[in-house]
Amino acid sequence: MQKWNVLHKKGGDFSWPARKVDPTEAEEVGYQGYYHSGYGCAYGTFYAIIGLLAEKYGTPYDTFPFSSLEFSKSGVGGYAGTCGALIGGALAISLFYPRKQAIPLQNELFRWYETTALPIYRPSEEAARINVDLGQAVSNSILCHISVARWCEETGIGASSKERSERCGRITADVAKKTAELLSAKIDGTFEPALTISDLQKSCREAGCHGGTDDFAKNTLKGKLECQPCHTGLGAVLDKTKEHY
Amino acid sequence: MQKWNVLHKKGGDFSWPARKVDPTEAEEVGYQGYYHSGYGCAYGTFYAIIGLLAEKYGTPYDTFPFSSLEFSKSGVGGYAGTCGALIGGALAISLFYPRKQAIPLQNELFRWYETTALPIYRPSEEAARINVDLGQAVSNSILCHISVARWCEETGIGASSKERSERCGRITADVAKKTAELLSAKIDGTFEPALTISDLQKSCREAGCHGGTDDFAKNTLKGKLECQPCHTGLGAVLDKTKEHY
Repeated sequence: MQKWNVLHKKGGDFSWPARKVDPTEAEEVGYQGYYHSGYGCAYGTFYAIIGLLAEKYGTPYDTFPFSSLEFSKSGVGGYAGTCGALIGGALAISLFYPRKQAIPLQNELFRWYETTALPIYRPSEEAARINVDLGQAVSNSILCHISVARWCEETGIGASSKERSERCGRITADVAKKTAELLSAKIDGTFEPALTISDLQKSCREAGCHGGTDDFAKNTLKGKLECQPCHTGLGAVLDKTKEHY
Repeated sequence: MQKWNVLHKKGGDFSWPARKVDPTEAEEVGYQGYYHSGYGCAYGTFYAIIGLLAEKYGTPYDTFPFSSLEFSKSGVGGYAGTCGALIGGALAISLFYPRKQAIPLQNELFRWYETTALPIYRPSEEAARINVDLGQAVSNSILCHISVARWCEETGIGASSKERSERCGRITADVAKKTAELLSAKIDGTFEPALTISDLQKSCREAGCHGGTDDFAKNTLKGKLECQPCHTGLGAVLDKTKEHY
């Protein structure tokens, strides 16, 4: 009944060798990749890992159709869902490792993104596209829409400005560096998950209401998105169609 | 100052030829791909397009490291952000087309997903992993977390159940079929965007408050996620840390 003829396994699943990339190099290439042909954040982080390996080691890394990573610009198709910089990093990790090994690395990357004041990277005067100081914000979310909104609120800079775009280029550098660090630790055998879900989410899960097993027939929670931006009655989630004007 | 030596362009950017896949075949392979080795939704939709092309036409399609699509299982790294089935479809589109051509196709796919009662696909008795009727729900969101929760609420079936997983397998089939249809129309030159953003989102944008240009210094809206699930004061977004027990 299987419809396909041969499930594709050229070289085998997860057969591309995991290799280290220098985090500082990944950071710089991530930033420059973000701006390259306007391909954006996912291209930047992914090229900073797999593109650098392609340049250094050739095949198989150089067979990847890198420009396709443009699909995640502005949070995939312009929808501002999952941050594209994280998508580029997560895909790079899953090129090397199946899910049991990949997910702890990806979760560490995602939780770091949620809890860290970003951007950290400041390009050199020579490299910078916009050579200004930019404020930071903790996004508390891996979603592009919320991450951008939080930063705009914090800095007073508009979402459609060149400064906001520069902020995303620098975050691409940050995510590329963090991904390179996580992969290096994994390859060295020193990776240990250090970050956990928030106390809020932990309490929602430990109360037995959410994130349980099949026993919870009415359990509707899927995933690990941080709860707070949407479920704690912040002003942003009140009824904007009635109370907004 | 460019840090990388050679920006990778083996064969050129967006150089893989766009070819048609039969939508009915894509639907069946999407469903089977979802379950293959537990790789999940993004693998299913992507393999249903690019994997089928690899089986029929070989190179360059067969050089893609398909197993890496596992990265989007459960909405990327298990976080339940952007639906992985949509990520697989969007990536397949961006393999062929740069953003000016890709984004209208991706937006049509995403808006169709937000507004359609899913799943539609019902596998044959022979093919079905779980041979049951499953209810449908309109997600009003491209996010895995919300899409799953809406379906669970509508059907009374738990998020961690095998039936919920089967529902996602069938949605993978639906998204694979829709992606194949959109690509076929694009290749035939008959694709016309048919769906628009919701009236609610349109009014928020046309009021001049959101989604504007650099003139709106305080504009904090990024992307096209449907507003309603998080911004209209539904019960789910009230303060769950205070009013929930």
